[in-house]
Amino acid sequence: MLLSLLLSVQAAPPAAAPPKPYDAEPADWVAIPDDEMLVFTLADGRRVVVRLAARYAPAHVANMRALATARWWDGESVYRVQDNYVTQWGDPTEKKALPSGLIANPPAEYEWPAFDAVATLAKPDSYSTRAGYSRDGWPLATNGTTAWMPHCYGMVGVARDLAPSTGSGGDLYAVIGHGPRHLDRNIAVVGRVIEGMEALSSFPRGTGNLGFYEQPAQYVRIRSGRLASTLPAAERPRYQYRRTDNARFAAWIAARENREPPFFTMPAGGADICNAMPPVRKAS
Amino acid sequence: MLLSLLLSVQAAPPAAAPPKPYDAEPADWVAIPDDEMLVFTLADGRRVVVRLAARYAPAHVANMRALATARWWDGESVYRVQDNYVTQWGDPTEKKALPSGLIANPPAEYEWPAFDAVATLAKPDSYSTRAGYSRDGWPLATNGTTAWMPHCYGMVGVARDLAPSTGSGGDLYAVIGHGPRHLDRNIAVVGRVIEGMEALSSFPRGTGNLGFYEQPAQYVRIRSGRLASTLPAAERPRYQYRRTDNARFAAWIAARENREPPFFTMPAGGADICNAMPPVRKAS
Repeated sequence: MLLSLLLSVQAAPPAAAPPKPYDAEPADWVAIPDDEMLVFTLADGRRVVVRLAARYAPAHVANMRALATARWWDGESVYRVQDNYVTQWGDPTEKKALPSGLIANPPAEYEWPAFDAVATLAKPDSYSTRAGYSRDGWPLATNGTTAWMPHCYGMVGVARDLAPSTGSGGDLYAVIGHGPRHLDRNIAVVGRVIEGMEALSSFPRGTGNLGFYEQPAQYVRIRSGRLASTLPAAERPRYQYRRTDNARFAAWIAARENREPPFFTMPAGGADICNAMPPVRKAS
Repeated sequence: MLLSLLLSVQAAPPAAAPPKPYDAEPADWVAIPDDEMLVFTLADGRRVVVRLAARYAPAHVANMRALATARWWDGESVYRVQDNYVTQWGDPTEKKALPSGLIANPPAEYEWPAFDAVATLAKPDSYSTRAGYSRDGWPLATNGTTAWMPHCYGMVGVARDLAPSTGSGGDLYAVIGHGPRHLDRNIAVVGRVIEGMEALSSFPRGTGNLGFYEQPAQYVRIRSGRLASTLPAAERPRYQYRRTDNARFAAWIAARENREPPFFTMPAGGADICNAMPPVRKAS
């Protein structure tokens, strides 16, 4: 078979293969808490699960939890799909009232002083002097002064109007193309899609300006948006992040930076954070 | 309207806006020759146009021209769509005979000694010490020793088996996710999709290993693959690249590296080549 591109090192080795230094041990996989998962169900029944980065964007994530509790997203839509950029959803009319008590423009949670990565990549990229991983599997970047979450494929940000708007959290986008890192530090990054990217990434592209759908008939309806912790136990998604504070994960990074033969003949000697996203898996 | 993300600087300014230092002059736009465009027509009538990089991958591109002349792609298929990676097309059976005289494994045209960029980006990235642009609008990267074309969104490479296979050019892929730059220097990059990316990027993702479609019924049929130079004049696509060897283009780079207010409040001070792809436009 013309593979063209081999399985990444995230793939499970064949049953008989000896363990690799980058293989995780069972205890390296840690359950993602139910209140860190926001579950959108689309009209066609497909599910999109967003892991929430409450620690890095607490005010925006508090809003999003309140919006889910108020069932604010129920009946709303995916209304923008811009190729090589973002899929965006929420209220396209911008007229739906926010739940009472919700802060329409939270603080600008775009960057913070501490780069609390416990593992880092070998090389800088064009946007940061260093990038790495929080202990619990969030990608991070720094310029040596502040830290932030990078706009990589699958990361979720809060749509906003022109500054000083910071976005309520009701309108969200997921990156569906090359990481638009120029958005870093300009927008609140609030999470990452851990299930359903293949739905968000394959909708027809919008033909309006900026990829907006021109006709409401094109909208993809959202049946519901709920925190996993509010769903019946049997319906809750169950995911795990991989701990990053150990030698096995350091070996995983090195393997991403230097892909292995027999397919790869020229290791890159480096990787950018968007090509080495922290592993997340479905709990078995 | 919740824009979330403003138009890029590639977008035309409003009619009344004063010219910007990065605006192209009419003579900056140069026609792409007909024999540099490979036109695939899909079963649904949509067209995918690939600009061919004959100078950088001459043996592979010679093969591709021979395959088009032999109508080798007619009736073949898109058979692999791997999320955040590639859409791949050609002959999924691997049994179709190649035209006589075609070299099944051309030389490995993966890198070359001269980094002939006439404009460069301000910062290195995780994969190259410098990246920039050929005079005629190809993205280039270098490590200071060799040069190559980077795997960015929309770039087209030649699927191959394990080394020393280099791929005939019959099976091709286009990048549909974050630039998998680890493939640089491991595969022949032969061109760039300049029309039809929104088709290639939005097919349903394959559910087989590596994103292969599991059932032939899922294949997207290719009606034909032709060099534009062999099409009737009225059917030929007409595209232009933007010359990169002038101060206006240098200003364009600087504007990509430092996005402007009022949407952006924090310029990045750099951009990677995949977020600053050389401009190409449809001729009016």
